[in-house]
Amino acid sequence: MKKLLDRPQDTVRDMLLGLAGLNPGLRVLADEDVAIAAVPDRPEDRPVALISGGGSGHEPAHAGYVGAGMLSAAVAGPVFTSPSADAVLAAIRAVAGPRGALLIVKNYTGDRLNFGLAAELARAEGIPVELVLVADDVSLRNTVGRSDRRGVAGTVFVHKIAGATAASGASLDEVVAAARATADAVGTMAVGLGPCIVPAAGKPGFELGEDEIELGLGIHGERGVSRGPMQPAAELVATILSTIVEDLGIKADERVALLVNGLGGTPPMELAVVAGDALDWLREHSIDVVRAWSGNYMTALEMPGVSLTLCRLDDARLAALDAATEAGAWVGPGAVAEVQVIPAPHAETHDDLPEADPALVAALSRVGAACRAAEGELAEADSVSGDGDLGASYARAGEAIEDVARGARGGPDVVLQSVASVLRRVVGGSSGPFYAVALARAARTLQGETAIAPETAAKAFQEALQAITDLGGAKPGDRTMLDALHPAAEAFAANASKGYAAAWAAAAAAAARGAQDTTSMRPKRGRAAYLGERALGAPDAGALGTVVWLRALAG
Amino acid sequence: MKKLLDRPQDTVRDMLLGLAGLNPGLRVLADEDVAIAAVPDRPEDRPVALISGGGSGHEPAHAGYVGAGMLSAAVAGPVFTSPSADAVLAAIRAVAGPRGALLIVKNYTGDRLNFGLAAELARAEGIPVELVLVADDVSLRNTVGRSDRRGVAGTVFVHKIAGATAASGASLDEVVAAARATADAVGTMAVGLGPCIVPAAGKPGFELGEDEIELGLGIHGERGVSRGPMQPAAELVATILSTIVEDLGIKADERVALLVNGLGGTPPMELAVVAGDALDWLREHSIDVVRAWSGNYMTALEMPGVSLTLCRLDDARLAALDAATEAGAWVGPGAVAEVQVIPAPHAETHDDLPEADPALVAALSRVGAACRAAEGELAEADSVSGDGDLGASYARAGEAIEDVARGARGGPDVVLQSVASVLRRVVGGSSGPFYAVALARAARTLQGETAIAPETAAKAFQEALQAITDLGGAKPGDRTMLDALHPAAEAFAANASKGYAAAWAAAAAAAARGAQDTTSMRPKRGRAAYLGERALGAPDAGALGTVVWLRALAG
Repeated sequence: MKKLLDRPQDTVRDMLLGLAGLNPGLRVLADEDVAIAAVPDRPEDRPVALISGGGSGHEPAHAGYVGAGMLSAAVAGPVFTSPSADAVLAAIRAVAGPRGALLIVKNYTGDRLNFGLAAELARAEGIPVELVLVADDVSLRNTVGRSDRRGVAGTVFVHKIAGATAASGASLDEVVAAARATADAVGTMAVGLGPCIVPAAGKPGFELGEDEIELGLGIHGERGVSRGPMQPAAELVATILSTIVEDLGIKADERVALLVNGLGGTPPMELAVVAGDALDWLREHSIDVVRAWSGNYMTALEMPGVSLTLCRLDDARLAALDAATEAGAWVGPGAVAEVQVIPAPHAETHDDLPEADPALVAALSRVGAACRAAEGELAEADSVSGDGDLGASYARAGEAIEDVARGARGGPDVVLQSVASVLRRVVGGSSGPFYAVALARAARTLQGETAIAPETAAKAFQEALQAITDLGGAKPGDRTMLDALHPAAEAFAANASKGYAAAWAAAAAAAARGAQDTTSMRPKRGRAAYLGERALGAPDAGALGTVVWLRALAG
Repeated sequence: MKKLLDRPQDTVRDMLLGLAGLNPGLRVLADEDVAIAAVPDRPEDRPVALISGGGSGHEPAHAGYVGAGMLSAAVAGPVFTSPSADAVLAAIRAVAGPRGALLIVKNYTGDRLNFGLAAELARAEGIPVELVLVADDVSLRNTVGRSDRRGVAGTVFVHKIAGATAASGASLDEVVAAARATADAVGTMAVGLGPCIVPAAGKPGFELGEDEIELGLGIHGERGVSRGPMQPAAELVATILSTIVEDLGIKADERVALLVNGLGGTPPMELAVVAGDALDWLREHSIDVVRAWSGNYMTALEMPGVSLTLCRLDDARLAALDAATEAGAWVGPGAVAEVQVIPAPHAETHDDLPEADPALVAALSRVGAACRAAEGELAEADSVSGDGDLGASYARAGEAIEDVARGARGGPDVVLQSVASVLRRVVGGSSGPFYAVALARAARTLQGETAIAPETAAKAFQEALQAITDLGGAKPGDRTMLDALHPAAEAFAANASKGYAAAWAAAAAAAARGAQDTTSMRPKRGRAAYLGERALGAPDAGALGTVVWLRALAG
């Protein structure tokens, strides 16, 4: 169990103090893990106080939602454990005035009990207190009664809408009505790709196979309602949204707000893909999604996965979502947009030139096929000291070179320029530009020539290597592909008089030896250089790659 | 490799379209993975265009930073792979006017090459283009030269400051100067708790032991500069910040901005703890941290870990950080605050009462010790169908009960009320309130009595159980602690005439049988209910827990 924490027993306090250090509007109670917003000094000036909370591990819930326009206080229990009734009572005393307080409680036994106890104790002190339960997890619709469902991410919409209502000066009854109506208008369902580790238990709550997911999870690291195979994001989104839409009875053309909520360990790239899929699904089903937020809103420690929430909107709820708030974790206006795709310039064509030399076309086809076939081998080699992408780069390059071969037109210089152009386009990383600049330089050397002798090709080969050095600054011995290509070019020149097949074969053999020699070279260029001595013991993957296409040229 | 994606080869496009769906200010180019901001129609009205980008997998970088006041365009390559020079060229053509463009490039070979090639091609078309490299990873200071370091999260500060400068109407030279000065003023260092999985490689770039971390990682899933043992967050923060401060030569009282950056799989709770530690460290070292942001700014897919960045500030850079921007991923004003801890009400004391009955004190001490000793056993039992927190709850309860025993004053009712009070305070979850309400009810039943006969205690035991049912609604057969406590109370009453030791022993034995009987009960209350049939086969942990303190009472 590795977590970025200090003393485990102080984690909740540390977290609250960290949040308060980044939010001048937040205060922390001295003896309780309670974050409160600034409230008017005179109790009678205070609006209805909104208080939420629960176990910790759901950040930014709940302290992140404290601020004018959302919560007045957040009560933070130990991780995944309800706070005590005393802590809730302290929060009520700290922020409630004569207009009273509304406790917004996610439907879990512990929270219901402690917030319920605290509400009774506060009422005994003369403070009007009401409690609204949020039970929005639609995944439990076939398991328990509607009011017995868990409260999950939809609670954030209840905070926002009730918060805006309270800030407008409404009475406790009015704030309760707005909160209760919102609680009835939200539905949420989650998918988890893996477990999280609860510090108190020290191990995951469940284990998942390589291709398994849990559907219908809560936010406490427990197992979901069902387990299934991994699916594309769009299919998971369809399963989740259709369940929510059916459960809430959302109709065509109805306005909704969408919350795409990361469960804590979900990277922003995946959240963006899921958000796009969710917007697409809603529009395909004629549901009028007018607001949407995506990010970490209600997490389960570091769990990888996502929940989707829909909130049915009327004019009042929409206005409340749009109202200003100072809560730090409520980010942005939730605007949605029709995606605007605008045209970009196209590359030049060679449609007017004669077809290329068949021997050159055949050589290109062999190179393309060989590059594709080498994907696995090069991915493996590159993962030792690189990021493993070289295999995929070769596969893309191979496909692109085969495409060029199929429609090749013009002399060798034009064809090489075309290859340079597609490699520049389809191959990322450093391989693309280096090969592109090398081929472009070779093409310039051969400009206008049609029947090229091997001796001329040898000269172009050397020029191409110089272009690589010019652009990247690498020298032989720096553990790059030049350590294979320099001996290859020399071997090619030395065997040029024996014809192309023999010259390329000699070049390939020399490249293979050169690549092996990199095994003991300390990397000085590119990402591998950051590893220093740790890269030693395996050959450079880029150097190994040169052998692939040189062998293919040999036939 | 489980990720929330659709067709892997379309991931970058899907991600851009998802972001554009949530940001009305974003447009996507038709043939390239390039996100652009709205720019004035007439090229001559455009300010200096700011363009950044690189491989994907670093979201929200870079498309999240596109918007007025930050980037004009972001070029998104395949995951961890530089975009092609053509894509960069398309971005330049799409957003640059006669004032030209600045390319902000993280120092990686591929990016340097492709952005460098694109810059040359654009200049050939008559567009003034400059390039500023960011090389802020101070972890490489003993490995490579200063200009050969990697570009990491500090790049976000360069985007912001150069963006504000461009938006103010500055010339290309002025924007370049601001960007270059910021690049020289930022330093970053990261710690990783685990690897990420690059889709192209399909497996982690490194493996870490249970207690190992990597220090000095880049943002491409590669290994760091060194490996070490897991440490408290504050120690990691101290290592990182002292390295940055020394490298940048930051002096006491100097103003800096802080960026606490999650690497993609880091939960908000840990980020908040790290942010608090970082603010503390800077203040302890008299460094004037005037702005701070915490969140996911420059990620490495789903890697768990964090990087810290410091940016030396002068008046111009501070004003540029504070300038408005429409970029969606630049969140909040970056305000920092001295933490305000304010007093909360205290609990009542019983200092004026006589010392409690020694036999009752001894019994309480035994119960406290037994609860503490049962931590492991109950954590294990609770992890089957709960979240594993019951063991920790018992340990906290045990400590608190021992504390009460040590200073116990007053009659049995006052002592039980004190135990109820501390359990309400220190035990979260549902156990705390249920035990608290039970003890409070028992205390009320015994109010004012001093020498209590076992028969009277038996009546109080029954009343206590009724209080639990009143509060939580659970009945025997619902698979709760009541399934152990009801038979225990009956056995206690039946054996009351034999004295306390025999009555408690009989109660404990009955509770143990009752707990075992829950093995075949379907849970109907609490979180376990969501598991339905899946909880069967093991006894209820809460029921097992009752045996612990009943046995201790037996002596």
